[in-house]
Amino acid sequence: MKLLSFIADGRSSFGAVKDNGVVDLGARMTGCTTLRQLLETGRVAEATRLVASTAPDHPLERITFLPVIPDPGKIICVGLNYRDHVAETGRTVTEKPALFARFACSQVGHLRPIVKPKVSDDFDYEGELALVIGKQGRHIPPDRALGHVAGYSCYNEGSVRDWQRHTSQFLSGKTFAESGSFGPWLVTADEIPDPSKLSLQTRLNGTVVQDTTTDLLITAIPELIAYISTICPLDPGDVIVTGTPGGVGAKRTPPLWMRPGDTVEVEISGIGTLRNKVIAEPA
Amino acid sequence: MKLLSFIADGRSSFGAVKDNGVVDLGARMTGCTTLRQLLETGRVAEATRLVASTAPDHPLERITFLPVIPDPGKIICVGLNYRDHVAETGRTVTEKPALFARFACSQVGHLRPIVKPKVSDDFDYEGELALVIGKQGRHIPPDRALGHVAGYSCYNEGSVRDWQRHTSQFLSGKTFAESGSFGPWLVTADEIPDPSKLSLQTRLNGTVVQDTTTDLLITAIPELIAYISTICPLDPGDVIVTGTPGGVGAKRTPPLWMRPGDTVEVEISGIGTLRNKVIAEPA
Repeated sequence: MKLLSFIADGRSSFGAVKDNGVVDLGARMTGCTTLRQLLETGRVAEATRLVASTAPDHPLERITFLPVIPDPGKIICVGLNYRDHVAETGRTVTEKPALFARFACSQVGHLRPIVKPKVSDDFDYEGELALVIGKQGRHIPPDRALGHVAGYSCYNEGSVRDWQRHTSQFLSGKTFAESGSFGPWLVTADEIPDPSKLSLQTRLNGTVVQDTTTDLLITAIPELIAYISTICPLDPGDVIVTGTPGGVGAKRTPPLWMRPGDTVEVEISGIGTLRNKVIAEPA
Repeated sequence: MKLLSFIADGRSSFGAVKDNGVVDLGARMTGCTTLRQLLETGRVAEATRLVASTAPDHPLERITFLPVIPDPGKIICVGLNYRDHVAETGRTVTEKPALFARFACSQVGHLRPIVKPKVSDDFDYEGELALVIGKQGRHIPPDRALGHVAGYSCYNEGSVRDWQRHTSQFLSGKTFAESGSFGPWLVTADEIPDPSKLSLQTRLNGTVVQDTTTDLLITAIPELIAYISTICPLDPGDVIVTGTPGGVGAKRTPPLWMRPGDTVEVEISGIGTLRNKVIAEPA
């Protein structure tokens, strides 16, 4: 099942893709108005039955896509988690994953514009596999970790490189307003039994700029979940963005930045393609 | 006015300190059940009038303190923002502030235990001045920045040093569950016209371990707000934790860690004292 958040007829809701449309679960499930709430209340099976028996409410072309989870309690990003990306940055592989945060205001949905800030031209793409937590847990052992995942999605972890390098800490360059994207939907984990067997491509104006397979993650998803849940609980709706492969624009000669008018796509096998145009922040 | 979040009679609410008690604003203001909502809806003046005309509902000894804002949209911490702390870490002063995040699950309220994780003994205090945003803004110029502050509070930015040093990024050591504290209350900005004129002390079991004045912040509060709001909007309820002075436990010989049974206090002039006991995470 493909679950997503959207606006239709001026109202925010969530639902599931069916045929070329969307079943509006927010309108049909009493007491549940967001995808995060659906996960928190453990009502995915009920949603599945509802989708099976219901015709789509909105054609896909008529909805405005929101980030898959517009209001996550945590967005935890993993830096430097593919060897080719670590190599291009001139860093060395660390034993533990490098974690940093983004805030919710930094995300937009599929087909919404991502925004190049007016204070920088060093606006870079990072295609990544994201996962959404479906079941609360702390100290989750790796062999049970995938059971805590609601589903998988595409993420463009848009990065403002000069601001990212202001200090040792990445956050400043990683959470510019509407600089990244998350979508189009999550594919529920039952359809992706092994998230280490996916292929991921990032394309800028149709040209492939990143191309990897997720078996190359340095810290794999079960170990990421175990590590993070040692630090704090993982809760339904929390998002983990697993890291970007080599090929980022900053490390090319000359650098390849995203510019207003560009189209950037992140495609992951078994999930779909997240597509966004780039616009300039108003002066 | 001192605004706070608390639990009384088994119900989460928010209110204001009056005499030795609390006026329960969450029970008295329709449509407003959290301090964040009070700020979002701009009803502080209404709250002020209500407090003036109302007797306290609960004695202070009978409430359970929550973090001042239990559910902030963003917690933005500033690293390395006092020269004596930069010096003790062996780093150099950067032109821009080093920002990182904590998640809400890492905070507890005044008088609640903070938790030493079972995976580490390197549990350190960081006394800091925190501010809470009261008015939304983006690209806020420094000369208008203080007008966006709802108030000021004490923060113990509890840090798990070995995990903080797993990689270049601080987040892992900064967001352990219930490792930090935020309180007891915020003092509204009208009572603190100049937040650069405060004194701050951290005490471990009564011994002063950090002692500074806030005029020594490298990046002052107006410039912090301007820098952060260049990156993304600042919204009511967002928390900025402004940095810790020298004297942290990790840089002493031998290191001075917080241990179960210890009491740690952060006192800031004009605000009050945030006090927490340390307990061990259950095995």
